[in-house]
Amino acid sequence: MPNLFAELPATAAVDEQFREILQRPGLRIERIVSTGQSSPPDFWYDQPQGEWVLVVQGEAKLRFADEAEARHLRAGDYVDIPPHCRHRVEWTPAGQITIWLAVHYD
Amino acid sequence: MPNLFAELPATAAVDEQFREILQRPGLRIERIVSTGQSSPPDFWYDQPQGEWVLVVQGEAKLRFADEAEARHLRAGDYVDIPPHCRHRVEWTPAGQITIWLAVHYD
Repeated sequence: MPNLFAELPATAAVDEQFREILQRPGLRIERIVSTGQSSPPDFWYDQPQGEWVLVVQGEAKLRFADEAEARHLRAGDYVDIPPHCRHRVEWTPAGQITIWLAVHYD
Repeated sequence: MPNLFAELPATAAVDEQFREILQRPGLRIERIVSTGQSSPPDFWYDQPQGEWVLVVQGEAKLRFADEAEARHLRAGDYVDIPPHCRHRVEWTPAGQITIWLAVHYD
């Protein structure tokens, strides 16, 4: 039985870990594990698909280009990111496991 | 900020609680909270859509018609249920909160 909390990276991992969970036409479910990473300076995601994202464990600061301040997401918080809504990850806590569940959809 | 762990029912709730989280063409994300319920005897779900389901908290026994025994899902376990794959919930623990995240897709 696959488990969302299995095979986590070390808390000192250099890169975020991406794992595809389900791929169907127009749908992709992905687990992302952050361990202190954030988006590069001045980088903004600008995606053609919508993305619903849930912080399952840990926390993060998610910034939207049209908002003055980042949103501080904690375990259980979720947000829907419409297509082409520019956003970036401002912060995830170093030395801790933050697990995101992302549902990408057309 | 909406949160998956907010506004949970009482652990003695009579019925399962269903909350729609996101609805898009061909996609519906739903939170289901069980507090001891199971599917009625001899009832089988037979759905035209696929359903990816994750147990976020708690546990459950999920039975598939083509398997001899129920699968015991614990927190973090997930399973993809293809369209028309007959299944039923055999058990959820009474007096406890079991939170499912269900992604229904065309």
